[in-house]
Formats: sequence, structure tokens, C-alpha cells
Amino acid sequence: MASYRAPIDDMRFVLHEIVGIDGLRELTGFEEATPDIIEAVLEEAAKFSEERLFPLNRSGDEEGCQFADGVVTTPAGFKEAYAELTATGWTGIYCDPQYGGQGLPGTLSLMVDEIFCACNLSFSMYVALTHGVYNTLVRHGSEELKNAYLPNLVSGLWTGTMCLTEPQCGTDLGLIKTRAKAQPDGSFRLTGTKIFISAGEHDLSENIIHLVLARRPDAASGTRGVSLFLVPKYLLDESGNAGDRNTVSCGGIEHKMGIRASSTCVINFDEASGYLVGTLEQGMRAMFTMMNAARLEVGVQGAAIGEAAYQGAVTYARERVQGRSLKGVQHPEKAADPIIVHPDIRRMLLTGRAYVEGSRALGSWVAKKIDISERHADERTRREAEELVALLTPIVKAFFTDIGLEVANLGMQVYGGHGYIREHGMEQYVRDARITQIYEGTNGIQALDLVGRKLSAHMGRYLRHFFHPVEAYLESHAADGEFVEPLAKAFGRLQRATAWLAQAGLKDPEQAGAAASEYLRLFALVALGYMWIQMAHVAQRRLDVDDDGTGVVTTPGFYQAKIDTCRFFMQRLLPQTSGLFASIMCGSDSIMSFDEAAF
Amino acid sequence: MASYRAPIDDMRFVLHEIVGIDGLRELTGFEEATPDIIEAVLEEAAKFSEERLFPLNRSGDEEGCQFADGVVTTPAGFKEAYAELTATGWTGIYCDPQYGGQGLPGTLSLMVDEIFCACNLSFSMYVALTHGVYNTLVRHGSEELKNAYLPNLVSGLWTGTMCLTEPQCGTDLGLIKTRAKAQPDGSFRLTGTKIFISAGEHDLSENIIHLVLARRPDAASGTRGVSLFLVPKYLLDESGNAGDRNTVSCGGIEHKMGIRASSTCVINFDEASGYLVGTLEQGMRAMFTMMNAARLEVGVQGAAIGEAAYQGAVTYARERVQGRSLKGVQHPEKAADPIIVHPDIRRMLLTGRAYVEGSRALGSWVAKKIDISERHADERTRREAEELVALLTPIVKAFFTDIGLEVANLGMQVYGGHGYIREHGMEQYVRDARITQIYEGTNGIQALDLVGRKLSAHMGRYLRHFFHPVEAYLESHAADGEFVEPLAKAFGRLQRATAWLAQAGLKDPEQAGAAASEYLRLFALVALGYMWIQMAHVAQRRLDVDDDGTGVVTTPGFYQAKIDTCRFFMQRLLPQTSGLFASIMCGSDSIMSFDEAAF
Repeated sequence: MASYRAPIDDMRFVLHEIVGIDGLRELTGFEEATPDIIEAVLEEAAKFSEERLFPLNRSGDEEGCQFADGVVTTPAGFKEAYAELTATGWTGIYCDPQYGGQGLPGTLSLMVDEIFCACNLSFSMYVALTHGVYNTLVRHGSEELKNAYLPNLVSGLWTGTMCLTEPQCGTDLGLIKTRAKAQPDGSFRLTGTKIFISAGEHDLSENIIHLVLARRPDAASGTRGVSLFLVPKYLLDESGNAGDRNTVSCGGIEHKMGIRASSTCVINFDEASGYLVGTLEQGMRAMFTMMNAARLEVGVQGAAIGEAAYQGAVTYARERVQGRSLKGVQHPEKAADPIIVHPDIRRMLLTGRAYVEGSRALGSWVAKKIDISERHADERTRREAEELVALLTPIVKAFFTDIGLEVANLGMQVYGGHGYIREHGMEQYVRDARITQIYEGTNGIQALDLVGRKLSAHMGRYLRHFFHPVEAYLESHAADGEFVEPLAKAFGRLQRATAWLAQAGLKDPEQAGAAASEYLRLFALVALGYMWIQMAHVAQRRLDVDDDGTGVVTTPGFYQAKIDTCRFFMQRLLPQTSGLFASIMCGSDSIMSFDEAAF
Repeated sequence: MASYRAPIDDMRFVLHEIVGIDGLRELTGFEEATPDIIEAVLEEAAKFSEERLFPLNRSGDEEGCQFADGVVTTPAGFKEAYAELTATGWTGIYCDPQYGGQGLPGTLSLMVDEIFCACNLSFSMYVALTHGVYNTLVRHGSEELKNAYLPNLVSGLWTGTMCLTEPQCGTDLGLIKTRAKAQPDGSFRLTGTKIFISAGEHDLSENIIHLVLARRPDAASGTRGVSLFLVPKYLLDESGNAGDRNTVSCGGIEHKMGIRASSTCVINFDEASGYLVGTLEQGMRAMFTMMNAARLEVGVQGAAIGEAAYQGAVTYARERVQGRSLKGVQHPEKAADPIIVHPDIRRMLLTGRAYVEGSRALGSWVAKKIDISERHADERTRREAEELVALLTPIVKAFFTDIGLEVANLGMQVYGGHGYIREHGMEQYVRDARITQIYEGTNGIQALDLVGRKLSAHMGRYLRHFFHPVEAYLESHAADGEFVEPLAKAFGRLQRATAWLAQAGLKDPEQAGAAASEYLRLFALVALGYMWIQMAHVAQRRLDVDDDGTGVVTTPGFYQAKIDTCRFFMQRLLPQTSGLFASIMCGSDSIMSFDEAAF
């Protein structure tokens, strides 16, 4: 059976020794984020998730959500777990205290998200979607809307959804057909059908607050004519409680490959009452401002499943005995050696470990930059942080979810035939992880966002926020030949590919489009390498005799394992960059000149 | 919805223009394999599979097999389809006419297998397992056993299974516990439990013939003490028909990620009557002789799912409109352009196409060598063919199933969110393909087989059967700079990695073990490149003005597409070899020195 313990040691290490979460206490509002609080949050999140969410993961997958007469029932135990979750305040951990939140840094709450997702991705979806609504409303909602809706969203009494997709439009939101008619009282009436609405209907919360993209009858076509509306399942009565039912209904739920305990709904709006969020015809902008956070969150979902699969595989690799070590018998008292002695098993485990831990560090770095972009006193510091986040967001979303699937598959492979059987829980990780490559913008769209928008923004300024620190780091650590050399080589490939793309893509956008996915992976591997070299260097300092004793992890072997995993990453994973580089430099011709009729 | 048409054009091309199936008519027994017969077989297989098997694929997945009181019921329609299949003689297509088969080349029947697997992998399993039993019995069974069992296995009236795995042993068959006690009449009584037995129990056939690995009570431990037995579900009565029930029972079926319509059974033997197949204590040898065919078959399963997923994705990419071409509007009459105009969609489609078509050619080449190894008049020719097959079999099994999953995932990705929904059928391809990387020896085991046994065999003699023709081809086509250069570069990497492995692995087997999976992929990519360059050159000759008119495909654009897909393969996929090479050459240290306790 799969097993999971929240990787708190690594989270402590990343937060305190790599990204420096303690520095965030200087920012207004984060004064309370002391090391004690951080420690308590991590430990309690681990305890709650391991004890309450993880046990519901398999059963929730087997049972799935049920739909009957417009009502969605979540699997057994979900309601009780959700009630506990809200009672202990987990839903508002990073939200503004003004609305009942705890006001902790997003950098910390991302770790909590990871733990929730690793234990039960389906369950975590109900909370994640509410976060999305919170983030949008808090930035774009009127004071009236914020005061009316945010407190109950923050407490988790109500949950939220993002209603974007329609049958004819997914990526291309300009094709939205849902209509919004203005009413004399300033409200709107919405009519249309939305599909793939996560948490669109369920039995966990008293009310469901939909944020809906729609267009007025006389609005422009395309994305320019799209506005954002808040449409509650239950209208608020005079005291602000959930009152009469709005004309919003669930038409059915999808039967999916995975995240089966997360309801994915068809939501019908039939002259439903709604309220404008932000400015008319500026709906896309409102959506985009919350997308960095949402895409980072989805990236973390992928990496979280990877962590869970890695841990499950390690447990099995220690227990399962099969064959003998190539070095000769290691455990003569057993019928065979545990499979963890076999090189190919170790290769699979280390691949998972290197990807997941590298992703955790990179994701935390981005999360910290989001915190800075929102809170720092200095405008320029805020802007630079925001630009780095904009650059790295598509990379985090696409790469973390790609490696999430890869690691889930490797974890399953370690189990052999037993991994293919549902009861062991490993194949569920593969099915669950698979959606993360698709939703919140497919990974192909992320790659296009990177090469089409982020590279060219302000003449490459976003890019420099990443390139300059990497360059500086490599220069100042030139003495370390072992790790600097491979990273410098990979970074050189990234620089050359970037220069080529900037030129070729300017002349012909299809050059950029054809290179996008491979370029994103090349970039991501370099970014992970940048995290790994820092982790290895910090770890080495802890091991050196003159260590100043500031290491936060006391588990024996932890720091040595960091260095060893870095070595594996540099030697066995980073070399992918050479093939990616070569593919990119071949250009788009072999892709674009292929006759469409011949496919 | 997914759609599928058997890729008969490409099969014609590969059979006639690449591997030269016509040459097989010179071999004893294959005289009847005329072009007309080959054409008829392909066309009828396509018709039967598209019309009868493909429609049962989704419904079979939803319904799954049911188990109650020891009885397994296959999904609706399977029984009728199986009855039709046997009535039309498909089960014996390549079997010996002496037992009622049609005696056609394995090279041809592999194409039929591909079509069956692409249409309905679960269904095809019932036939494939019977093939495995046929192949083993025909080589190792006594005349008595062959005469008693083969005719009904060939006709499909009875089906077969291979009973190897037990709860404590999968890869390591030396751990087998099932016991066989000799009886005075020369028969045996078998007692034990086998798991993961595909087609172990079902309602399609009148009798089920199990081939069971077991050991006598006083046999040696490890694989040396293992013998092979035939254990029928129903014992034969005096006229050779299925008579009394043997003490073999199904204890349950597994709930699996995919191939849900294929029954995967726990089979209990309780003093069951069985008959020795081959020589006592030579069970492993008997198993191994049928493994080349079985592993090739599983490889083809992977590639077949890849083909089906590719086709489904192409259909969707033509239909789905979303966004506009980066070149500007292509279809102003539509709300958006079909997504097939987007570079990243084309990249995904071409990746699938290049992998699948390359695999089809390589698989057919190996199949032809199997036919030659079994039938050729010249002993040395037979032996050389057999050795090449032995070398390429682990590559075919592991690489085809790896790309099978990759292509299934790409196909699903093209569908976006719709791919994650069960009704479209794309996610089923991912779930179904996933098992092919595991069963019939995990892909890690295939890689070990390649580096541990096949490379070193007879001082590298197997290897030379592949290296020499590739070298010769590259030399004799040096004039073609476009494709020879990238292939020569990749081939050079393979040669250097091989030389290094031969040395390093000799001193330290863990060096070979640590490099195995990457080495296998490197080798496979070169092998695919060798197929692609031949396909491109043949296609170019057909397009040249002085074409001799021997091209067998009349579909417009077919030959040009071959050249264009080759270009894509060389430019965008083959460069992976550089990263693989670099990883291999880093050696095993980063894998083996990692502290076991630190995982």
C-alpha cells in the first residue's frame, strides 16, 4: 500500500535555508510569521492531512462523486473532513485578517497546499478553487462584494468556482457564448452553459460562489467583450446569509480518468442573478491577475503527487525482495534482496527525488517572489519580483506537472504488476496527476505563454531577472568544478537557444511556437539546476567542520543526501538539455511544412 | 470520440517495400503467402477489427470483467465477437497447418495482431495468451500433448494461459513455491497459487489450458528446480473433449488501472492434474524460447495503442477549432482555426507518427528475422537471424511500450480537458498502454537483459548483426547528407557507449545496470533511425522521375509524408541520444553511492 509522510524536513530546509522565509517578516502584515508559527503550521498540516485526508484518497477514488437530480454527493468521509478543515482554520491560512484569514505568507501556505494535494488531490480541489475566487475578488471585487462574500469564503463556510470553459471554448476564451443582461438595479442576468467546472456542485459547503466569464449582448466579439460576474448558488438574504436559490443548476458531472472525488460539473445558468466583478469588458484581465497563483498551485499539485508516488515507491522498494544484488547477496537471511539494491530501481527513485525536491525549492522561490511582489515597500523590488514570477509561472506549471506524471509513472513502475492494481494506490497517482498537465491552461499553452509573451516582454527584461542571478552565482562559485561546470554548460545552451528564439521568433512566430515545449523544458531543467546547486552548497557548508550551526534539519544524513541528489541531477537528468537544445535549433520547418492532409 | 482505421497503406509499404515479405515465400511452408493472400488478410483483419472489436473497446472498459463464485464473465459482446473471430479462423493464422492453422508468416500475423490490439487490447489478450501456449507447446510438448491440445487451441475453441507469477515472485522466478508431485502414471499433481494470470478464467472458450511453472518437492532451489506443466481447466475425456473439471479454480480477479475487459486472475491449483512439458527442471528454458515472440507481441501492443491514440488525436485536431494560426487567420469562415494549424499540436502529432511508424518498421524487421530463424534452409542464416532477434527483442519490448505510453499521453493532450473525460476514449489508451511497460518482464528487466546478456553474448557477436548493416548502409548512402549525418552521429554515440559499457560493465556489473535503461533507449532511437532512413530513401525513389513503378501505395502524398516524417524524426527526436549518451558516460556512482537509508 502507498504510504506518505509530509516531507517536513525538506520543507524546513527549503523555507529557512534556501529561500529565506524569515526575511518575509520584514514585510507589512507578515510580522507574525515567526519560526515557531511556521513550525506549528507545518506540523499541524502534516498531522491533519496524514490522519484525515490521506485515508480518504483511495476510498474517494473508488466511490467517486455521485450525481442525481441536480445534486452532487461527495464520497463518504469528505463532508466530515471538510468540516474539520474549516473548523481548524486551514482554508484562510494566507487570507487577509480583515476577512477572517490568518495572513500568513503564501510561501508557507504553498507548503500546506503541497501536503494537502499529496494526501488527497481531489479533496484539495474544493479548497483550491475557493482560493482562486478569493484571489480574484480581493483584487477586483467592489467593497460591497468583498464584505458580503469574502468572510464566508475565507472561513470555508462557502466555497467557490471559476466558470470559464464552455463546450466550444477552452483555450480560446474569445469564443465564450454565455450572455449577461444588465438589469435596472445594476445587477445582471446570466444565461449559458459552462463545462468542466471543478467543485461546481457538491455537498461540502452551505453556498457555492461562481465566478463566471460572460459577455453582454452588445459587447465586442473575442476576449475584449468578456466580463466577469459573481453568481452565487444561493442569493444572499437581508442579513447576508444564503437565502433563495438562484437559477444556477448542475446538469451533470463528468466521468474522468482521475480526481474522481472532485466533482467536475456542467453548470447551467438560466437568467441567473449575477454581479459584475471589476470593470465591464475587463473580465480577462481580472482572470489573469489570479492566474500566477493558480498556475503555481497547479504546478505544486503535480510535484506533490510526485512526492507521494516517490515515497510509496521507496517503501515498496525496501519491502519487496526479488533477485540478488549485482554485487552479490546482500541479505542472505532473506529469500532475495530488497529491490532497492538494484541500480535501475535506484535510478527511478533518484529521478523522482531529484525532480520533486528541486521543484519544491523552485516553487518556494517563486512563492516568495509573489509575497514580495504584493507586500514589499519598494516599488521597484515589487515590480522586479512580479516580473520574475511572470517569467517562471508557465515553467513551474508545465514542468512540475510534467515531472509529476513522470514520477508517478516511475513510482508505479517500481511496484511492477502490483502498481497496476488499484488497491496499491500507485496507479491512482498517475491518473490524478494527469489532469494537472491539462487544466489551468494546457502545458502547450504554458510554453506558448513563455516564448510568446514572457521572453519578449520589455525587450527581455523578465528574462534578465533570472539570467543575471544565475550568471552571478556561477561566477562567484567557479571554484566548485563539480556542479558549476554541468550547470554552466546547460545554462549556456539556454542562453543560446534564447538568443536564437528571440531572433527567429521575431521574424516568424511559428519558429517560437514549434520550439516552445522543448524550450520550456530546457529552461526548467536549468532553473532546477540553479536550485540544486544552491541546495548542495548550503548542505556542504552544514557538513563542513566550520559550520556555523544554523542548519535547521537534525535528521542524520539529510545534508549529505542533498549533495548526492544534486550529483545525480547534474549527471543523469541535466544532460537532457543537450538534446532539447539540438531539437530547438533545428527550427520549425519539419513541423510546419508537413502537409496537413497527410496526417 | 476516438476513431481508428487500420493503417493498411503503411503496412503494405513496410511489408513489401521495407522488409521484403515477398522473400519469405522461398521458405518452406510459406509458399502460399502470395501478395494476394497478404492483401486479403490485411483487409479482412481491418474490416473485422474496425467493425467488431473497436466498438467493444469503450463498453468493455466501462463494464469490465465480473467475478462471482469462481466464474468470470466478460463484458457484453465479447463472447459473440470471440465466436466470430474463431469461426473466421483468425486464431490460427500463423499456426502449423498440421494442427489446423493457416501457416502464414509471423511477419504478416504481427500486422494482424497490431490491428487487433489497436482496436481492443483487452480482447486481444485472450488470443495472445493462447498464442504463447501454442508457441511453447509446439516446441516443447510431447507428440501426445501436441495432438491432444494444439488443434483446439489453434481453432480457438480452447484458450491458454501462462502461469508464472506468484505473490512472492514476479521478476525472480527462482522464488516459485507451487509444488508438483509426480504420480505413478507419469502425470503430476500441482498445488499452489498463481496471480496476475491474464485470461486465467473467462466465458469465451470451452476449456482453458494453463501452462504452469512449478517445482517438484525435491527439486533444486532457484530457477534450476523449476519445471513446466500443462494443467487444463477441464480434463480430457476418452474422445479428447473437455470432460471432468480439474481442481483448478479462480479465486478472484484484480481491479486494474486499464485493460479492464481482460480478466487478470488469481488461480488456485489444489492437487490439480498436470502433465510435464519438455524436460524436468528445464521449465525456464521452455519459457524462454517462447519469450522472443511474446515480447515482440507486447511491444507491438504498445505501438498499436500509440497508433490508435495518434489517429484519435488527428481526428480531433482537424475538428476542434480554437484560436487562430500564428500566421494569421486560416479559416475565416469558422469561429476559429482547427487546432491542427498550431505548431505545438503538430509537434505532438508528428512525434506520435514518427515513433509509431518507425516502430512498425522495426517490429516487422524483427518478425521477419524470426520467420527466417525458424524456416530458413541455411543453418548459419537461421542462427544469425536468431541472434539479431535476441538482441533486438528487449529493445522492441521496452521501447515500443515506452513510446506507446508517450504517444497515448500526447494523443490525450491534444484533446485538452476532453481527453481526460472517459467518454472520448483517449484516456483509456493511456491506462491500457501502461501495463505493456510492466508485463512480460518490466522494461527495466528488458534493459538488463540487453546490457547483461545480449551485449556480451559471444563476445559481442549479436551486436555485430546490427552494427554491421547500419555501418554499411551509412557508408553506401553517404551522398545523402541530410539523413545520414544525424543518424551517423547518433550511431557514433551508440558505438562509444557500447564500447564503454563493455569495458566498465565487465569490471563492475552495476555500471551496466545503472546505464541499462538509458542505453536501451539510445539503442532503440538509433534502430528507429535506421528504419526511418531506409523508409525515406525508398520513398524518395518512388517520387523520383525514374521511379520504377514498384511502389505499392497509391494514396496521394504517402511517400512525401514518409520523407517528411523522417526529417521530423531526425531533427526533433533523434537528438535525445546526446543527452542519453552523456548520462550513460557519467557512470553509476551517483546512483550506487547514494545511502540506502537516506531515500
